[in-house]
Parts: sequence; structure tokens; C-alpha cells
Amino acid sequence: MTTLYHYWLSQGSRFIRLLLAEKGIGFDLALTKPWAPGESFLSLNPSGWPPVLAPGGGVPALADARAIAEYIDERHPQPVMLGQNAVARAEVRRLVGWFDYKFAVEVSDTLLFERHYRGMIRAGAPDPTAIRTARTNIRFHLDYIGHLSERRRWLAGDEMSLADLMAAAHLSVVDYLGEAPWDEFQEARQWYSRMKSRPSFRPLLADRVAGLAPPAHYDDLDF
Amino acid sequence: MTTLYHYWLSQGSRFIRLLLAEKGIGFDLALTKPWAPGESFLSLNPSGWPPVLAPGGGVPALADARAIAEYIDERHPQPVMLGQNAVARAEVRRLVGWFDYKFAVEVSDTLLFERHYRGMIRAGAPDPTAIRTARTNIRFHLDYIGHLSERRRWLAGDEMSLADLMAAAHLSVVDYLGEAPWDEFQEARQWYSRMKSRPSFRPLLADRVAGLAPPAHYDDLDF
Repeated sequence: MTTLYHYWLSQGSRFIRLLLAEKGIGFDLALTKPWAPGESFLSLNPSGWPPVLAPGGGVPALADARAIAEYIDERHPQPVMLGQNAVARAEVRRLVGWFDYKFAVEVSDTLLFERHYRGMIRAGAPDPTAIRTARTNIRFHLDYIGHLSERRRWLAGDEMSLADLMAAAHLSVVDYLGEAPWDEFQEARQWYSRMKSRPSFRPLLADRVAGLAPPAHYDDLDF
Repeated sequence: MTTLYHYWLSQGSRFIRLLLAEKGIGFDLALTKPWAPGESFLSLNPSGWPPVLAPGGGVPALADARAIAEYIDERHPQPVMLGQNAVARAEVRRLVGWFDYKFAVEVSDTLLFERHYRGMIRAGAPDPTAIRTARTNIRFHLDYIGHLSERRRWLAGDEMSLADLMAAAHLSVVDYLGEAPWDEFQEARQWYSRMKSRPSFRPLLADRVAGLAPPAHYDDLDF
């Protein structure tokens, strides 16, 4: 049986949960805390970060969200999530990288640390400047999602791809924190609404972290 | 002709320069400044970040270091740089991600910003706390490189791979800044010495940025 070591609000973990569901692969979840990974998790991934995928069947545990996604896609090529040719795959991977890195450092990692992890490690009060910067930065990214979805059916082209899953995974964490200003970004909202409506997304909308309630619209498909 | 839009001290740009050279692909360099990308570069990559690869022959410009590397590897599979099977590829990609993200946010992006980019955008004096944290963090990473290279011929296994190129690209930037404490990490130094000796590495050792001289050992193969 495939096991995914994850944390509820880890963006990369949510990305892999979406991908496994879209590929129709059954899996168990095992919880790990990014702020206190523990020895047994560190033996699976010395970085201490989820996600880690244990595919079973003698395959060693795999770490890094993008590496795990490439592995899953290679072993389960259908449905196509990585593009039909090398140029299309480069565009999917560019946008996967955009959210996995640029959006992470500019928006989602900051908000997650300031609004959640900081409390878990008792690292003092949130830094208002960091939060304010992330809240400014997200507007640029939501505008870019709107720009892409005006020109394409999905973010990387005509087919839904890993780019949509990575973007939606990051946005879903920001949305859980009540930090996505959807009202001002209607195209991005429409794209996110389509993502939210997919059966693969349902489990994410049921996630709840103790002491950190999402806004009322979080699991509303007509938000 | 293939053109690589790069910046001298951009870690991802150096990674792609190494990869193109290892694959035996000729290319021109075009300079872009990450702190002031300009309209024409932004039209190639809205993130504003090098590297961007323009492969020519009607192929659109490609962005994101990992996406570019996958494209190059798919079009030029020899020599093998991504592993011989899906599990080996997952390990290569895990370590590529380790340096492209974890090492970047914990060490190299911080040092590059504080010691170089901050001056270019006149953003005030370096933050001593950020520099001190990065100098502490690098020890963990050099220790991990040593751990890996005691157990394997190269970082991801028996063959040199994209993992070595990504790690060496990041380390080379840190080394240019005089921030790599090689004396305390002999295994990591030996691995880096092997990387430095490769013909693909020579052009990187000749890079010089105005107003920011590297330490004397930077281009010394017997450092």
C-alpha cells in the first residue's frame, strides 16, 4: 500500500494528495509535523519536510514534491498531467516551479510560518511586515493566474496539469488562512472554483487544524 | 543557436551552463540582471528570474532551472544525468530540489541578497542576523554533502548527475562570496574539488563581477 507522509497545511503534501487522487491511486496518510519531524521521519527524509511518499513493494521512500510527482507520473502516465511533448512539459514544469518556489517564498511559506508554524514552535508574535509583504505579493500572483486563465483553458494549456494542482495546493493553504482576496480577482476565482469542484479536492476541503479554523467560504464550492 | 539568458552569480544559471557543457551543447550567453530584469526579459519570463533558455528553431523560451534541465535531458539523453530508472531519477530529483530550494532559502539566496543584490538595489546595509543564520546553516549542508559522498561515488549514486551540478552551482556562488568553510568539511571539499576539475566548470571559475572579487582560492583547483 502507498503511504503519504504529509501535514494538513503543507502545500507540497496537498499537491501530492491531489495528484494521487487524479491518477486514481489509493493511499494511506501518515501525519508528520514540519516543525518537529522526529527521528523516524528524518530517516525517511533528512530535510525534515513533507511530503514523503512510501510507494511500498520494496521501493524506497521518495521525498521532494516535484520529484515525487515525476515518479508518480512516470509509473502512472494516464491521465496525462505533464504535457504531450517536451515543450508542453517544459511549460507545465515552469509553472509547477513558479508556485513551488516563487509563490512559496513570496506568499505561502511566509503566511504559513507567521500564522501557524510560529505558534507551534513558540517563536514569538507574528512579524507584521512579513505578513504585509506577503499580502501585497499575492495580488501579483492572482493577477498572473487570471492572465493565464484568460488565454488558456488551464494554467499551462488546454489540459489540466501538474501546474494547476501545484497552484491550487498553494492557494488552498492560503485560502485556509483566510488570506486569498478572491473578490478582487474574478478570473483567478473562477479557475480556483473549477479546481475546488473536482472530486480530488474534496478531502482537502475537509481538513481542519486544531486551533486554526478556516473562513466560512473555505469549503464552499460557491464561494 | 541556443541562447542562455543568465546572470553570473545566479545559481540556476550556473546549473544550466554546467549541464549544457556536460551534454556537449554549444550556446551563447545573454546577460540579465535579476534585480532589474527589464521589459524584454520579462516577456520571456514573467517571474523576472534567470535562467531562461532560448533553444532556437522555433521553440519558445523556457524558464525555471529544473524545467530547463528536464527539457535538455529529454532532447539530449546522453550522457545520462538523470538516473537509469524511475527510482534513481527520484533520488536525483530529490537532491536537485534540496539544493534548488532548501539550500537556496537557507543559505545561497540569503548570502547572495545580503552580500550582492542588496547593494545593486541600494536596499541599505546587510542584515547581520540573516548572514549569521546562513553561515550556521551552510555547515549542516556541507555535512550532508560529506555524508552522501562517503557512501556514494557521486551525490545521488554511482554516476554524476543533475544533483551534483545543482549542488556545485549553488556552492560555487557561495564560494565566490568567500562563504564556504571548506577547511572544516574535508569530504565536501573533495567532492567539490572533483566538480571544479571538470572542463564544464572552467568558465564558471573565470566569472568576475565588478566590485565583488572572489577569494584567491576561488579558481584554484588545489584549494
